[in-house]
Amino acid sequence: MALIVQKYGGTSVADPDRIRAIAENVALTKSRGNDVVVVVSAMGKATDNLIALADSVSKVQPGREMDMLLTTGERVTAALTTMALHALGVDAVSFTGSQVGIITDNVHRKAKIVEVKGDRVREALAAGKVAVVAGFQGVSLDKEITTLGRGASDLTASALAKALDADACEIYTDVTGVFTADPRIVPQARKLHRISFDEMLEMAGAGSKVLALRSVEFARNHNVPLHVRSSFTWEQGTWVTDEQESNMEEPIISGVVTDLSESKVTVVAVPDRPGISALLFEPLAAANVNVDMIVQNTSHDGTTDISFTMPKADMATAESIVRRVADEIGARDVEHDNAIAKISLVGAGMKSSPGIAAKMFRTLADLDVNIAMISTSTIRISVVTSSADLEKAARGLHTAFGLDSGEAYAAPLPERK
Amino acid sequence: MALIVQKYGGTSVADPDRIRAIAENVALTKSRGNDVVVVVSAMGKATDNLIALADSVSKVQPGREMDMLLTTGERVTAALTTMALHALGVDAVSFTGSQVGIITDNVHRKAKIVEVKGDRVREALAAGKVAVVAGFQGVSLDKEITTLGRGASDLTASALAKALDADACEIYTDVTGVFTADPRIVPQARKLHRISFDEMLEMAGAGSKVLALRSVEFARNHNVPLHVRSSFTWEQGTWVTDEQESNMEEPIISGVVTDLSESKVTVVAVPDRPGISALLFEPLAAANVNVDMIVQNTSHDGTTDISFTMPKADMATAESIVRRVADEIGARDVEHDNAIAKISLVGAGMKSSPGIAAKMFRTLADLDVNIAMISTSTIRISVVTSSADLEKAARGLHTAFGLDSGEAYAAPLPERK
Repeated sequence: MALIVQKYGGTSVADPDRIRAIAENVALTKSRGNDVVVVVSAMGKATDNLIALADSVSKVQPGREMDMLLTTGERVTAALTTMALHALGVDAVSFTGSQVGIITDNVHRKAKIVEVKGDRVREALAAGKVAVVAGFQGVSLDKEITTLGRGASDLTASALAKALDADACEIYTDVTGVFTADPRIVPQARKLHRISFDEMLEMAGAGSKVLALRSVEFARNHNVPLHVRSSFTWEQGTWVTDEQESNMEEPIISGVVTDLSESKVTVVAVPDRPGISALLFEPLAAANVNVDMIVQNTSHDGTTDISFTMPKADMATAESIVRRVADEIGARDVEHDNAIAKISLVGAGMKSSPGIAAKMFRTLADLDVNIAMISTSTIRISVVTSSADLEKAARGLHTAFGLDSGEAYAAPLPERK
Repeated sequence: MALIVQKYGGTSVADPDRIRAIAENVALTKSRGNDVVVVVSAMGKATDNLIALADSVSKVQPGREMDMLLTTGERVTAALTTMALHALGVDAVSFTGSQVGIITDNVHRKAKIVEVKGDRVREALAAGKVAVVAGFQGVSLDKEITTLGRGASDLTASALAKALDADACEIYTDVTGVFTADPRIVPQARKLHRISFDEMLEMAGAGSKVLALRSVEFARNHNVPLHVRSSFTWEQGTWVTDEQESNMEEPIISGVVTDLSESKVTVVAVPDRPGISALLFEPLAAANVNVDMIVQNTSHDGTTDISFTMPKADMATAESIVRRVADEIGARDVEHDNAIAKISLVGAGMKSSPGIAAKMFRTLADLDVNIAMISTSTIRISVVTSSADLEKAARGLHTAFGLDSGEAYAAPLPERK
């Protein structure tokens, strides 16, 4: 008998019909002789609605109170899902994050998990019940209700899977798995059957929305295999695993990730002397601006240009800080560009295959796509281009790196428990 | 410095504007040098909406899961109210029933309070903060989330007032206090400045909706003075107190209570032998039918008629049980009547004033109102009439017992803290 953790995201539990549908899948999994732990998100737009309610009540929103407010969303889903299971004759019991002992630090809204006790889940399973856990939440060392940050129900699921030594952790969502590219942008995109933690981590960092970055980090660090799949089609999805063995059939590139969520700021003609970067990026960090890529041109005439990208949402904050610092350090101007796209190639095979970057740049050059910024890791190359070039560039790279046809990875699937 | 518990009901916190309005009243109370504990209900129709959601997900609704679901309503209000207080510069902190140590028995949906610890409320007050508590909920001896029954946020407020030895417990609602009659039925109805626990208890039992019966019971048993008042007009309301001293100006009757929520069932020509009543009412009790008034006619020809009233909502359950029992015991027929009204006179002065019942019956007879059933306590007389006679009867009694003009009670008000 296997122990399976199943996590259902917001679209999977958006309304009563969806909740009954996922309850049927849980019942089916249980009827095959498995123990099942279910982790649920808030229903559809429930979290957004609660945030809008808070916005209309008060501009002052202490983290502790926001956590008290937002955690109700997942509790509602957990209770309703449990009732739906009872209606199917499946004995089940709902738990809050606090009740299952998801112990966190004392930071509200973005608490980090310190320990997962899981005693009540174990008791429920031992009694033959399905445990339905409200995702996204825990209880702090100070006994306060905390939340783990947006999208962190995935994290709840992988942390519980680890604590309970589960055989599989299924992440149900509204897509059928992880794709070689966003199918809305690259129609030839194909679903990957398997991807490594490292690649998934780079994809999430490069802007893929399928899995939250912290959940992948946790799963990698604790080696919890994830199965990303659809709660609408129920087909086999993508396994995210600790893929150590090399495989001759493995392609060099696993996917092309596109991201339109960032903006670019350029500080023009900065005096080229030590400490300038610190003067610029320290206040940005202090203001919680998430700076992503940074490029500094080579100096000429004693000045240099510094460009960086950050989420569009942080643009207003960033620009006012940058304009102030630019005045102080005697830079000539500050420019910003909202019409940028970030395009990344991700692939573990890159490590042992030289010339990937050169081939990427050649492909883009042949397509007349201008590159504004470049950043790389051992298994990822990202470029910033004009947002107008996004589709052309992504499709061209997808074709050039052989992702359009065949199977991206031909190794056998992990056995379905 | 006084300690004041303020409870705000669903209409008082129905939307963001209302929540900001009550936060201002809390801030005002605090600025006068008082310590304030706020107890809140769920926003407007929030509880009804959650119940409708559960109904659309599953017909099977375990009490434990309903409690997990419904308690989120008050938590949302508590968090939002706390944020609204912060926006006004008032330091405040929200608590769940569990966090303030409202310990209950293990009965879900209608849990009884076993103990109120209140440690975290005391700590918050000592730190100069307003404590905002989610009403209606507690935590059971088995560490499960429980609810105290519909309308039980009043009970949370009085229980906290008792545990904290508060100087006053203000119950804010959408009416300005307790009236001598329902102003929609008796336009001459006046607001009472003061009423005794015993009278309020009889009024609640007779169908008055201003305060929930259990809350009045608790307040009486623990001598917690309640001040029922409006969160829309903020005017002085009605004090419900342990009114021991007699007062010459006290009227004999405090109010006329009308109730259209009940139905009547009559079992016709029941064989008049011992044990028949038990055969009838035991299965009704087992089915949780709340039987109110019972009348058994004197026997003639060896048979008797048994009539009883119960909430309209219980009618379907009651009738099927009664028809079965009627067959078993050989009764001739079962009749039911939905068009009934219960009209009650309540007044502590009744105890020492003979002839109230006679005067009531004479007044109704003069108005051509037929009496179907009668029940009495030491300070209440209730009659059942046709619902068509409700207004005529209530207005006539209101006039006959001198409630139309002057002050119902002229004693000085308790000092406003």
